[in-house]
Amino acid sequence: MKPTISRAAIGRLVLYFRALNLAQEKGMQIISSEDLGKLLDITPVQIRKDLALFGQFGMKGIGYFTGELINQIGNILGLNDHLNMAIVGVGHLGGALANYKNFEALGFKLVALFDKDVRVIGSIVHNIKISDVKNLKSIINSRNISIAAITVPVGEAQSIADLLVDAGVKGIWNFAPTKIIVPPDIHLVNEDLSMGLSTLSYLISKDQM
Amino acid sequence: MKPTISRAAIGRLVLYFRALNLAQEKGMQIISSEDLGKLLDITPVQIRKDLALFGQFGMKGIGYFTGELINQIGNILGLNDHLNMAIVGVGHLGGALANYKNFEALGFKLVALFDKDVRVIGSIVHNIKISDVKNLKSIINSRNISIAAITVPVGEAQSIADLLVDAGVKGIWNFAPTKIIVPPDIHLVNEDLSMGLSTLSYLISKDQM
Repeated sequence: MKPTISRAAIGRLVLYFRALNLAQEKGMQIISSEDLGKLLDITPVQIRKDLALFGQFGMKGIGYFTGELINQIGNILGLNDHLNMAIVGVGHLGGALANYKNFEALGFKLVALFDKDVRVIGSIVHNIKISDVKNLKSIINSRNISIAAITVPVGEAQSIADLLVDAGVKGIWNFAPTKIIVPPDIHLVNEDLSMGLSTLSYLISKDQM
Repeated sequence: MKPTISRAAIGRLVLYFRALNLAQEKGMQIISSEDLGKLLDITPVQIRKDLALFGQFGMKGIGYFTGELINQIGNILGLNDHLNMAIVGVGHLGGALANYKNFEALGFKLVALFDKDVRVIGSIVHNIKISDVKNLKSIINSRNISIAAITVPVGEAQSIADLLVDAGVKGIWNFAPTKIIVPPDIHLVNEDLSMGLSTLSYLISKDQM
């Protein structure tokens, strides 16, 4: 059983995973929590504490074996499970998301695209034919899809979420800037583009006071 | 002088701002912290505490005047300043961002798009002509741009950030999945798409343990 950790701690594990991959690309076979901390501007104590939740990693006085730790964090994050994902709504944002290169580096496989617009159904994006959203349930099942991104307009987000839940997805990644409601056993992550922008706005306006 | 608050608190202010706008659209002229809390799944105590940092809002036993609080939170967040923004890199993601409707609802004005690809320079997206990134500095200045989104490939992100800093932007909204370095007086927000996806992956894999 994996321990329950905060979303902030999950976020740090993702950062470690990415930094370790970069370190490995540069040929670093061993890395200390101090070096990793410097790369990420996170204290070594925080790193050791986060990892200790999941077991004993690395060797005291030596550091972590980069490849091994990548594999272990990948397991913790479920990235080695290579989950299949779908995108519902292939407008500008859905199209951008479909072409986002990092999914596969993170172990996800984009296997379906859905839209309701007959003008785009059937066309190919990122080697995947866009399907009619009417066939969502059967395709979610036949392609064993566990994660779906919602990139439809606000007014359609909840009904698409309902369809996805009914079809059996386990996680929803919502890009529509609205609150959607899902049953408690379905995981929901809201991606909120206005948040980052408003944060910048606040920080800039604070300077000018 | 505005108080220094955490990025989490800024995030909550954005949520309040949005929920209040929806409440106003529905004709609610007064809203209590309890009602606002229910809409957002945030405790009323948290809401009152966040707002108290910035002054005395609302009337005890009555609630907040919706329109007034929208205006006040807008001021706190700097959204009433109507900052001008630019997008550098008009590929899939930059194009999606350019068409993102919520910028203007939040008070931002997209006034410039840049790319280095001669095949797209000169074409029109969202009523804005794409400019050559070579002219970035003069356009950032002449159009009074304070925020720029970076939607270029990883390998170009730092050099674009350097150009933007040199041109005088105050805030950078980085979508390239890489660490960029800016001087301490420049505000940086990293938008990290792999974070949400990895969070979902962790939550789903945890269920299956």
